[in-house]
Amino acid sequence: MRFDLFLVPGPVKENRLADRAVVIIDVLRASTTMCQALQAGARAILPFAESGEAAEMRIKIGLESTLLCGERNGLKIENFDLGNSPSEFTPERVRDKIIIMTTSNGTRAYAGIDRSSLIITGALVNMSRVTRAVADSGRDVAIMCAGRLGQFSIEDTLCGGLLIHRLLTETGRRADLNDAASLALLLYRSNSRALKETIAQGEHGRYLRELGFADDVALAAGVDTIPVLPVLKDKRIINNDVE
Amino acid sequence: MRFDLFLVPGPVKENRLADRAVVIIDVLRASTTMCQALQAGARAILPFAESGEAAEMRIKIGLESTLLCGERNGLKIENFDLGNSPSEFTPERVRDKIIIMTTSNGTRAYAGIDRSSLIITGALVNMSRVTRAVADSGRDVAIMCAGRLGQFSIEDTLCGGLLIHRLLTETGRRADLNDAASLALLLYRSNSRALKETIAQGEHGRYLRELGFADDVALAAGVDTIPVLPVLKDKRIINNDVE
Repeated sequence: MRFDLFLVPGPVKENRLADRAVVIIDVLRASTTMCQALQAGARAILPFAESGEAAEMRIKIGLESTLLCGERNGLKIENFDLGNSPSEFTPERVRDKIIIMTTSNGTRAYAGIDRSSLIITGALVNMSRVTRAVADSGRDVAIMCAGRLGQFSIEDTLCGGLLIHRLLTETGRRADLNDAASLALLLYRSNSRALKETIAQGEHGRYLRELGFADDVALAAGVDTIPVLPVLKDKRIINNDVE
Repeated sequence: MRFDLFLVPGPVKENRLADRAVVIIDVLRASTTMCQALQAGARAILPFAESGEAAEMRIKIGLESTLLCGERNGLKIENFDLGNSPSEFTPERVRDKIIIMTTSNGTRAYAGIDRSSLIITGALVNMSRVTRAVADSGRDVAIMCAGRLGQFSIEDTLCGGLLIHRLLTETGRRADLNDAASLALLLYRSNSRALKETIAQGEHGRYLRELGFADDVALAAGVDTIPVLPVLKDKRIINNDVE
C-alpha cells in the first residue's frame, strides 16, 4: 500500500494519482464547509477555481436551485449568496440546493485529478468516515493538502497525518510513505493531544480569528463531529450516503 | 526576530523578504555544489533558471573564463562542461573560472528576491558559517527551501531546521516562527541523530543513489565540512571570504 501526501497543490504526475483513493483536505475551511453543507441537505457541491466560472455556471443551472458561495482572503465574494463559514450552511438555506463554490485554496484542488480515482473530501470533522472509505477501497492513497496561498498549512497537514495514523493503526497494514507523508505523521503524533490549540495558533487559524471567524476555527478542529462522506462524481461533490 | 521558512519555492510576498537575511537551501545538490566550487577557487557562480539563458550568458562573457554547468533530472545537460556533482568541481577545473549554472530546483530560487536582502547559499556543509553570518546580521530571517519539482524535500527542510535550532540555541534570542519554520524545527530535532540516514533514505536521496550519485548524497549530508560563505552580490554568488 502506498501513501503519498502533497503538502501543497502543485504539479503532480498524473500516474501517481490514477486509480488511487484521493483525499482532498482543506480544513480551514472549504472541506469543513462542504461536509456541513451536505449534512444540512444540500444536493451537491460544484467546486470551481475562479469566481467568474462559478457565476456563469449559476446562470446556466438556474437561480432558483442554486446558491453561489465562496471567499477570497477569507471574506465572502461580493454579490455571492454565502461565504465560506460552515455556520452559514444551515438546513433552511441549503436543503436541496446545488452549491456552486469557489474558494482561495480548497476548490482548486479538484481540477485535473484522474477520473479513475476515488475522490473524497476530507476534514477533521469527517475523519472516521474518510478513514473507513479509504481502507475499504483497498486502493493506494494520495492525500492532497490545499495549503494556503501556495504554501504549506499546518491544519491540513495535521489532518493528513491523522488519516495516515488511523489507516496504519486500524488496518494494521504496512505502507510505503513518501517524505511528506512521513512528515505529516510526525507532525500529527507530536501534536495529537493539542489539535485544537495547534490549529488555533497556526498562521491560518490566527488570520481567520482576527477576521472574526473564531467559531469556524473551533468547529473545524473538532474530530468526527460531522460524519458525512463527500465524494466527487461527474464533477459534483455529493453525499455518498444519499446517492 | 522573525524566522519564516518556505518549504517550496512559490509566490512569496516581497515585503516578507525585503531587508531580511535570506538563506537559499538546496542540499541535493546545488547549494552543496556551489560551496564546493567556491572552496575550489571559482571566482563566481551565476545562477540561471533556464539552460538557454545560461548558454547565452556563457557566450556573452566568453568561453575561456567560464564553465557551463548544470543538470536536469539529476543528469548533466548535453554539451555542458560539468553536471551538478560537487566532486566534479575540483581546483584544477574551476579555479578562477566563472561558473554559469542551471539546475532543476536550486538555481531558480535566486531570481526575484529583493535586493535589500542579504542573500546566502545554505547547505549542511557550510551551516556554521551561515549561522554566524545570519546571527551577526541581526536581520529577520527567511529560509527558502528549493524543494524538488515543486514539492517539499526532506533534506532541505532538515537543513533549515538545523539552522533555526542553532540560531535559537546560540543567540539565545526569542523568535517568532511561521508554521513551516516550526515544522522544520520539529523535523530536525526528531532526526538530529540520524541526519545522514534520513537524507539517504529520503525520496531525493534514493533517486540520486539510484542514478549512481551515492557519494554526492553522503558528501551533502556532512555538516560543516566545507566552511565557505557564498553570498549573492550583483547577481553573482561569490565567496565572502575572498571579496
